[in-house]
Amino acid sequence: MKLTKLLPAVAVLAALPTLGFAQEEAAPGFDEIGPYIMTTLLFLVGGFLVFWMAAGFAMLEAGLVRSKNVAMQLTKNIALFSIASIMYWLVGFNLMYPGDFNGYFAFNFVPTVLEPVGLAAADASLDYASVASDFFFQLMFVAATASIVSGALAERIKLWPFLIFVVILTGLMYPISGSWQWGGGWLSEMGFSDFAGSTIVHSVGGWAALAGAIVLGARKGKYGPDGKVTPMLGSNLALATLGTFILWLGWFGFNGGSQLAAGTVGDITDVGRIFANTNMAAASGAVAALLLTQIMYGKVDLTMVLNGALAGLVSITAEPLAPSLFGSLLTGAVGGVIVVFTVPLLDKFKIDDVVGAIPVHLFAGIWGTLAVAFYTGNWGAQITGIIAYGVFTFVVALVVWIILKGVMGIRVSEEDEINGLDSSELGMDAYPDFSKG
Amino acid sequence: MKLTKLLPAVAVLAALPTLGFAQEEAAPGFDEIGPYIMTTLLFLVGGFLVFWMAAGFAMLEAGLVRSKNVAMQLTKNIALFSIASIMYWLVGFNLMYPGDFNGYFAFNFVPTVLEPVGLAAADASLDYASVASDFFFQLMFVAATASIVSGALAERIKLWPFLIFVVILTGLMYPISGSWQWGGGWLSEMGFSDFAGSTIVHSVGGWAALAGAIVLGARKGKYGPDGKVTPMLGSNLALATLGTFILWLGWFGFNGGSQLAAGTVGDITDVGRIFANTNMAAASGAVAALLLTQIMYGKVDLTMVLNGALAGLVSITAEPLAPSLFGSLLTGAVGGVIVVFTVPLLDKFKIDDVVGAIPVHLFAGIWGTLAVAFYTGNWGAQITGIIAYGVFTFVVALVVWIILKGVMGIRVSEEDEINGLDSSELGMDAYPDFSKG
Amino acid sequence: MKLTKLLPAVAVLAALPTLGFAQEEAAPGFDEIGPYIMTTLLFLVGGFLVFWMAAGFAMLEAGLVRSKNVAMQLTKNIALFSIASIMYWLVGFNLMYPGDFNGYFAFNFVPTVLEPVGLAAADASLDYASVASDFFFQLMFVAATASIVSGALAERIKLWPFLIFVVILTGLMYPISGSWQWGGGWLSEMGFSDFAGSTIVHSVGGWAALAGAIVLGARKGKYGPDGKVTPMLGSNLALATLGTFILWLGWFGFNGGSQLAAGTVGDITDVGRIFANTNMAAASGAVAALLLTQIMYGKVDLTMVLNGALAGLVSITAEPLAPSLFGSLLTGAVGGVIVVFTVPLLDKFKIDDVVGAIPVHLFAGIWGTLAVAFYTGNWGAQITGIIAYGVFTFVVALVVWIILKGVMGIRVSEEDEINGLDSSELGMDAYPDFSKG
Repeated sequence: MKLTKLLPAVAVLAALPTLGFAQEEAAPGFDEIGPYIMTTLLFLVGGFLVFWMAAGFAMLEAGLVRSKNVAMQLTKNIALFSIASIMYWLVGFNLMYPGDFNGYFAFNFVPTVLEPVGLAAADASLDYASVASDFFFQLMFVAATASIVSGALAERIKLWPFLIFVVILTGLMYPISGSWQWGGGWLSEMGFSDFAGSTIVHSVGGWAALAGAIVLGARKGKYGPDGKVTPMLGSNLALATLGTFILWLGWFGFNGGSQLAAGTVGDITDVGRIFANTNMAAASGAVAALLLTQIMYGKVDLTMVLNGALAGLVSITAEPLAPSLFGSLLTGAVGGVIVVFTVPLLDKFKIDDVVGAIPVHLFAGIWGTLAVAFYTGNWGAQITGIIAYGVFTFVVALVVWIILKGVMGIRVSEEDEINGLDSSELGMDAYPDFSKG
Repeated sequence: MKLTKLLPAVAVLAALPTLGFAQEEAAPGFDEIGPYIMTTLLFLVGGFLVFWMAAGFAMLEAGLVRSKNVAMQLTKNIALFSIASIMYWLVGFNLMYPGDFNGYFAFNFVPTVLEPVGLAAADASLDYASVASDFFFQLMFVAATASIVSGALAERIKLWPFLIFVVILTGLMYPISGSWQWGGGWLSEMGFSDFAGSTIVHSVGGWAALAGAIVLGARKGKYGPDGKVTPMLGSNLALATLGTFILWLGWFGFNGGSQLAAGTVGDITDVGRIFANTNMAAASGAVAALLLTQIMYGKVDLTMVLNGALAGLVSITAEPLAPSLFGSLLTGAVGGVIVVFTVPLLDKFKIDDVVGAIPVHLFAGIWGTLAVAFYTGNWGAQITGIIAYGVFTFVVALVVWIILKGVMGIRVSEEDEINGLDSSELGMDAYPDFSKG
Repeated sequence: MKLTKLLPAVAVLAALPTLGFAQEEAAPGFDEIGPYIMTTLLFLVGGFLVFWMAAGFAMLEAGLVRSKNVAMQLTKNIALFSIASIMYWLVGFNLMYPGDFNGYFAFNFVPTVLEPVGLAAADASLDYASVASDFFFQLMFVAATASIVSGALAERIKLWPFLIFVVILTGLMYPISGSWQWGGGWLSEMGFSDFAGSTIVHSVGGWAALAGAIVLGARKGKYGPDGKVTPMLGSNLALATLGTFILWLGWFGFNGGSQLAAGTVGDITDVGRIFANTNMAAASGAVAALLLTQIMYGKVDLTMVLNGALAGLVSITAEPLAPSLFGSLLTGAVGGVIVVFTVPLLDKFKIDDVVGAIPVHLFAGIWGTLAVAFYTGNWGAQITGIIAYGVFTFVVALVVWIILKGVMGIRVSEEDEINGLDSSELGMDAYPDFSKG
């Protein structure tokens, strides 16, 4: 613990003999500690960028719901992030990274413990990074998964059943399935590859959302008896665009930090490749949606362009390092195309996904994960991984949603839905000063 | 001064022999300069994150005032940050970090001077960081203090008296009291501990706000003669939530950068601990407010959840390094509880704090500072520090507010208040296209 | 390509022998690779900060247009960034940084190729940074140029001609003129100095905007036959303020990253100077506009304060390193003054610049570039550079705008303009739930 801020004055520095860095005699040099310091820094910078994605999801979703549900959507987003932070500490992190385990399920229900203060270099994992920075970084990923669910199920789900689902998703479901690959489990043994989590993070969120959307049902009035789909317009496209830019920014940390090393020429150069490729995929996803909506509908659709950028990002997430910039452009563009075609497809099946989370995170996530096989050649492992995460997450989520529905109900009353969740569930209004049109 | 951007091509590099880094012969190696570079980088990254908190305060406050006062609140926030930047350069930084001084007040009224361009390693404080980066980082803290005041006094204070108060607060009050601890003054001698400023930054802002709120009085109609409190709802909870996420993000720099060193294994690992602990306290503060408002009022209150997260952050700021994750959870949760109980308490005393800045920054700041004694055992020093900052800031602020009130008036007319400060003080409207409800 | 995330557990680390950093025998030490790693990191952090400016422009512009044009302005901003990303990869980067060339125009139409994955230290430009990080950083600058144009021409330009102009600007115009200086061309030979691009980025955007504004004409009703100017108020000053804060934050990367090196004491200290100076110029630009609008109009004008901060930032961009903090204060303050005086001036000439982009980026950019001569003494080179970029960009832009006007029309119909571009061009509304006043 440091008692005072340092002063630049030399005299005062001399008066503070407790400062560690000046006293370490025969301390290991930068050739030994430099990689540890750089990788820890990568996790901290990458981690705060991925943290920022929580704000991105909140703004995107608040912008894409109707004004009567905005306060609720904001509440869900800040609550889910907070709950994820606690659950991942309580059990998630150690379930997901248990060390040596059976490859399927680690009986390792212990909270995360950080290194002691002022860790000596001799006690550090000099070939990796600090546990605290690793925990901080990984924690942000689980929150992203939960955010995906909140967007799809907006405007009709009750607050508390949703938050209970978040507890289970972030404390158990995501860590357990995550351990199969990133914990060194059976899928990693098989050669499955998912660099930063097109499947492990995004598709998992998408599958959980899909199960929820089916159990929950569509919003009242969304699908007419004659197959007519009534558009329910987002109330604030400026917020939705802001959210998309925030997510785009955060994704540099999401993918770049997943290099998990930054202290060699090769590693930091790879992080640079990842940044450039990630940006390219987002750009091409947006442009693909821009061109396609112009061609198909005669007018550009801004929400499709936003979701196109996000789908490009999800698509490149499974392999942001190996492709060239041109490869990244193609990968992202396919993601953008997928969104434009699958948003109406979901409506055909009367699956009501308020913000387009399932096309963006699930469908583009599957595409991105499959596309890795162009580089690894191991199609079997990729398909196995996609199916494994899909079956596990969808089935467990379905069971959890059905139980929640039976035990406490997951949907607000029809009247509450019409009045909006803000007034019925929270008793407040996000924009009380403005008349609603 | 660098005249051109570098080209990757080797041929061009060879043609630019003025570039310093290739020519330094017998320059000190990374074992000597690495810590300086890393700590300077910590201040720059930490500093831009804390800068970002200025946007967070602006959005939080713009979201929590009524729409007729939004443009004014935005004006105050960008103006106060700009004034703080100038005042801290002009006198603040050197008043606060004077080097050797009497411990109470440094007669050191000189503007900040940075190192020369292209500083040689031999001339640098290799055991610390660049002066410019240190100044940049510390400057951002004083701006946070001023932001706290602007939120509490919103919706009825005149622009110019507020800005004059900011001049005094950021140029004199904060630096002088700050020197007692971070400048190596009498409180640091006594063993007071306030890692990143629960008291020195947040409570100081809270005390100044409290003095202002008392002198200024409550908004018209807020407190009825019968003790009835009329809620005056924030106009844009999406902005308020965005502001909270921005502050949360910036706080990683606020607390993490206050490690003041990043170039050893121990220091960078400690920064990681601080990031993880800071996040945990915010999360538990939010969850505490979420649960408590549900239990107490039967409905979740989003603004309480936002303020709960912020109170968790303020609470952990006095000691974000020593606690375990579980300790951080407890510290933050108490902060969240404090906010839920003290927001109505202020209303009992008819102290009108528009955004809840006093509960969040003053009350949670006191709690966080007290809680440090669980780790240091030095309750006396903690209590002395809390009282010293409270008495000094409250009394000086009270005197300044009373003088400003007498000399120029600090409050707009009743008519102007009803019409809103945007039209009366600025002659503009933040949302001119939208009908007000 | 990395197949799995690392586990902290040592046992698992041992089971992953493919990890590069542990195996590099006789790898070069940090004295050799440290500067490369730090400069690459500078580009990545600086790059994501400048990326963030794209969101800043989007929010600023969305806040300063009327609500009926917000969705269009958002669409343009995300589309222009995406197009710039693709064009700069396709031809821009190699046109701008061609290596050895004639100094005026490089016949180098090849897409950018990044280093191979897992670059060996022996193959890296150890005296610079990774190509990918450099490309990522430089790419963000071209996007800023295009954003400037989009703001000035808002509320009446058609989507597709604007995007075609962006293709030409970001793929050809900006890279070609940029090569004159940053590519080591004739202006750099002459001693022209423009550290981070007051002219090369900001004035170029401003000139292209000016040409467009002239060809396009003013918005209907903006200028009456009697010389009366009708104010057309921005619809959301909270967004505009947010955008300004975002740009301010991003500017630390813009200017700081342009040091192009961070791995020596001199370089990282210089980056710190740049951060402090950049902040000071923004602050003084804002305060200058605050005081001046109070004096001139009797009321503070928030949009002028925002533009004052931005003009301060543009002004310091040509030389953010050499000035003292006081010099930066003066430079920025002049920028703020310029904005307050030239916004009405443009109206005199009936040049309709919706967001004030031409005063902020062109006029303050000229001032900042001129001011460099106070440090270099080379007035001739500064004036030559200003004129060269002005003539080239303005003439080429004028020709392109005239051709676009002739071929496809660049302006929406009067009826569409009155109804708003959101409904006419996009068929959607940014704020559908809210009644328009």
